[in-house]
This record gives sequence, C-alpha cells and structure tokens, in this order.
Amino acid sequence: MAKPGFLRLCICLIVIPGLLVWAQSDPLPSWNDTASKKTIIAFVEKVTKEGSPDFVPLSQRIATFDNDGTLWIEQPMYVQMAFILDRVKQLAPGHPDWKTTQPFRGVLDGDMKAVVATGEQGLMQLMAATHAGMTVEQFHNIVTDWLATARDRKFNRPYNECVYQPMVELLNYLRGNGFKTYIVSGGGVEFMRPWTEKAYGIPPEQVVGSSIKTKFQMVNGKPELMRLPEINFIDDQEGKPVAINQFIGRRPIAAFGNSDGDQQMLEWTAAGDGPRLILLVHHTDAVREYAYDRQSSFGKLDKALDEANARGWVVVDMKNDWKVIFSPPQ
Amino acid sequence: MAKPGFLRLCICLIVIPGLLVWAQSDPLPSWNDTASKKTIIAFVEKVTKEGSPDFVPLSQRIATFDNDGTLWIEQPMYVQMAFILDRVKQLAPGHPDWKTTQPFRGVLDGDMKAVVATGEQGLMQLMAATHAGMTVEQFHNIVTDWLATARDRKFNRPYNECVYQPMVELLNYLRGNGFKTYIVSGGGVEFMRPWTEKAYGIPPEQVVGSSIKTKFQMVNGKPELMRLPEINFIDDQEGKPVAINQFIGRRPIAAFGNSDGDQQMLEWTAAGDGPRLILLVHHTDAVREYAYDRQSSFGKLDKALDEANARGWVVVDMKNDWKVIFSPPQ
Repeated sequence: MAKPGFLRLCICLIVIPGLLVWAQSDPLPSWNDTASKKTIIAFVEKVTKEGSPDFVPLSQRIATFDNDGTLWIEQPMYVQMAFILDRVKQLAPGHPDWKTTQPFRGVLDGDMKAVVATGEQGLMQLMAATHAGMTVEQFHNIVTDWLATARDRKFNRPYNECVYQPMVELLNYLRGNGFKTYIVSGGGVEFMRPWTEKAYGIPPEQVVGSSIKTKFQMVNGKPELMRLPEINFIDDQEGKPVAINQFIGRRPIAAFGNSDGDQQMLEWTAAGDGPRLILLVHHTDAVREYAYDRQSSFGKLDKALDEANARGWVVVDMKNDWKVIFSPPQ
Repeated sequence: MAKPGFLRLCICLIVIPGLLVWAQSDPLPSWNDTASKKTIIAFVEKVTKEGSPDFVPLSQRIATFDNDGTLWIEQPMYVQMAFILDRVKQLAPGHPDWKTTQPFRGVLDGDMKAVVATGEQGLMQLMAATHAGMTVEQFHNIVTDWLATARDRKFNRPYNECVYQPMVELLNYLRGNGFKTYIVSGGGVEFMRPWTEKAYGIPPEQVVGSSIKTKFQMVNGKPELMRLPEINFIDDQEGKPVAINQFIGRRPIAAFGNSDGDQQMLEWTAAGDGPRLILLVHHTDAVREYAYDRQSSFGKLDKALDEANARGWVVVDMKNDWKVIFSPPQ
C-alpha cells in the first residue's frame, strides 16, 4: 500500500506536467473552455489539416477583423471621436471664432447635444478641422502623439492598451496557422495605421478603413501627400465587402465583427465555398467592460445578432467566454 | 614543362567550377553585367546587410512595380485594350445596334480612328460594355478565359507569357531578400489579379490598380458584388503615390516604371529617407521587342526620362542591359 504522501506525489507528478503541457499548448488561454472557443479551434484545425477535405491552402487563409468594439473599446464613444474632441480643444486657441460657432462651441463647452444637432455637416466640419490640411506624415505624428498621452477615463489606460486580450490571442493563433490577418474597419485608415502593428501585429498594408481624399503635390521640389477635407470612402456596412474586394481581392474564410456595420462583411465571407468561421463579439459584461447591443449609439448590434442566431454564427458572450478583457498593464 | 593538353585541363578544372558557382549564385542571369545590374545588386546588398548604416528592416522593404511596359508588353496597344476590342467582337451578336453606333462600329470595322474620335466618352462606353454589368467573379472568369486563348500577334504567345524575364528575375531576387513586391498600375486591378500570381509571384492583395465602382447586393439571399459602369479610381500619374499611401500605407524604398505615368510614384519613392532604388525601363530594342519613348501613344516616356537622367535614376537600356526579353516558352 502506498502512503498518502507518496500517492499525492505520484498524482502531482502525473497531473502537473499534464496541466503544464496543456497550458503551454492552449493557443487561447484568455478564453474559457466554452462552445465559442471550441468552434474556433475546430475550424482552425480543420482548415490547416493537409489531406482533409476542408483543407485551405495558405494563400487563401484570409481573416478580416472589424476594429471598434471587436478589437478595442468603442464606448462611451468611438476612440476616434475622443481624438476629434481633444484635438479641437488643442487647436482652439488658434481659432477664436470656434468659441461662438457650432459644432466647435459645443465641443469646447462639453455640450454634445449641440454637437449632435449639427448633424452630418457638423461632423464633416469637425473632421475637416482635425483630419485634413496636413500631410499624411504630419497626421501620423499627430495621432501618435495623442495616443501617447490620452487615456480612457473608465480604465485609466492608453487607448491602445484597451484592446481585448482574447482577440489579440486569436489574431496570433490565426497567424500562427498561416492566416493573413486584416483589419476592415469603419474607422479612419490613417488613424489606425500608426499603432495597429504594435497593438495587434497587423502591419499598415493590412489595415483597410474609411478615408478622406489625399492630393499629391510638389512643394519646393519635395513631393507631399496633402489630406483634403473630402470623404473618399466609408468602410462600413455594404462598404466592407466592397473594400475587401478592392483592397484584398480575395474573399476571407473568417470574419469577425461586433455590430450591424459588420453584417455585410460577415455575409460576404459566409457565402464563399468551403469551411467558414463567422464570429460576433457580444458586449455582455457591464462590470468588466460595457453591456450593450440593440439600443447602442456606438456599435449597435441588432440585425446582425438576429442573423447570427439564425445562421449559427459564433456569438461571443464576453462575460462568460472571456477570462480577461484587456491585456495586462505594460 | 606541362603539356598543352594538361594545361588546358588545369585551366578547365579551375575556371569552369568558378563559372558554375558564379552562374548558380547570379540572381539576375538574364541581365548583362552592366551598370544597371550592378546598381540593383549593390542596393539590395546594402539594405539587407545587418549592422550597415543603410540596413532596412524587413517590414519596410516595399517595392512597387508598374505593369504595362515595365513587367509585360504594352505595344502596339495596352493588353487591356486588346481585351476590350476582342470582347466587343465577342458580344456583338447580342447587340445589333453596335453595327451602326460608335465607338462599337469602329471596333467591329477595325477603324481605330473612328474609335479614338469618340474620345473619353467613347472609351467609357467601351469600358461599360466590357467591364461592367457582371459580378466580380464573373469578370474574373471572363479575363481568365480570354487570356487562355488570346495571343499577342507579333510574338504569337499568350499575353501573360509576354512578360519580361529580367524583371521576373528581379521580382524573385527582391522577394528572396525579404522585399514585399507590389504592382501599382494604371491598368484595371481586376483585369490583373487573375494572372499576376502565376506570372510574377504577386498575389491579388499586392496588386493596386485602376478600378470601377462595385455594389454589394443581395440576390435571392446570396451576396454579390456587381461591377458598375462608373470610374472609382485612376491609378496613374499623381494617382500612384495616392494609391500607394491608401493601399500600402508605407512609402516604398524601391520603385520601377517605364513611362511618364510612373513619374510621381518614382518621385514619391525617391523622396523618402535612406537608400532608394529608382528604375525606369527604356524600350530600346526594336528587333527583340519595340523601341519607343517620347512620342509613343502607349507608355510615353518623356519628362520622366529627363528627370531620371538629371537625378541619376537607373535607366535600363533593354537592348544592351537584357540578355533575353521574354521568358522561355512554357
């Protein structure tokens, strides 16, 4: 008969290394072991298994991710909106008329109702004042400088640290299995490119987004790309599959979103032949992040949620599927 | 005293293996050993040498190539124009009115003067008739089918074999040294994507070009991208640096063109910090291909040639720099 101590040692010797091996090989450690995680892993194993009827060649392993609300936070407003508000305040000393003119006055007074009342035209004025009239390099630097100091108020962290750790693991997991990962976001492409490589491992050339027009010009013999106060492309809703076709030229086999703005991208991806992974992040965690869906001003999830339920797409329940929300402080 | 035969053997034993090693390690075997080749190789060795002040990290090794006249032929007309003419003839039985209406009548009668006389509006009508009104998949198949049977008349080869072997070697050489190679062409992006991977090793997502608008629509519950008869973007001249910024989001460190349409891309590339390789292909070989530059209707090379000479960019003299023009028959 083995003594209890010896037995305990035996169990430890067997169980602990097993757990260690499991922990090391778990590609999604921040995900609870629920159906969402199992579906993701089953999909990746299926499409990467050579000889399997579901095998997908490397070149076709394209995965597209929405950004706001899918990879980083979008409440209480889109981060790019926070940038616009901060930037107006920063530039205000050079524009005394803003004190009396909407939508600028509303921004300076913190009167968002007045800003919203100016509608699309007001938003365009804010965009023009904060996003245009400089070269692409200058705008890159403005965004980089802002991100270095701006903080999300609820979490008191830089915005580019308010990214979802489980999604970062998912990006790494897909890339580790030969996927090319893209952002396809309604956000401004040049607002994202300065920081996506560090935050997500996604290089500038794999970021697709909304854009304003730019103009090539020679200034003192030096070529410049000047940003113009004119919309070029809105990468949202029907625009997402259009942009995927225009920028990537292949249909993804996996697509990830969180709102009705992503519905057409998910539909376009789902409609291809062969295995597909279609996933919506559902914000259900009012304690650790936010809980919102059908009534939200930012990231409204209504029709796409119905379609996901009807078609059996993965709907991530943040509260129950994710062990942690954000990456640990850096 | 060694006998002459023994001496010859010794020389052979020394020289031939040396030549073999050299031939095996020559990354550009179809290039003569002229200044153009030396400049290319010196640039690549410089930017890939770790610890060198000119070293460029992998992620920034972006090279952009024009297509028409830089990677494949563009005489006696752009290949895409040959596609349009063939396609009009193919579709004509379903359009009896084309027999009497310009610009279609001119195409059917082989009267290119009449076609040209219809100007930009006529060209748009031809584009609309041949490039729009079908889904992106349908257009992909139309292009693929056409390329399978169409032949360049001068060389009696499929167009996608009328690609310049020295440039294909250059693409491979750059990729072998960690470069990401892109096409940035005035040609239609969806006209190029079906065949660039096989011809050049450039995947669809690294092809940037001109485009018409597409529309996302649901047809019997199935999402489609329908091609519309409306210009979206002209990727030529000032459009090239604009597109590079929009699609790639990084400034290339090497750029390759052959006409004034590439001048702004070359200027934009040249204006970045650090080492740059800027190259123009000059069509100087009337016997093996074509000789043309300042007066040509297709691929006019005038201002860009002056700038290249003034700034010391590489100007490839096809006749003297290239041992062969096209790849061997497949």
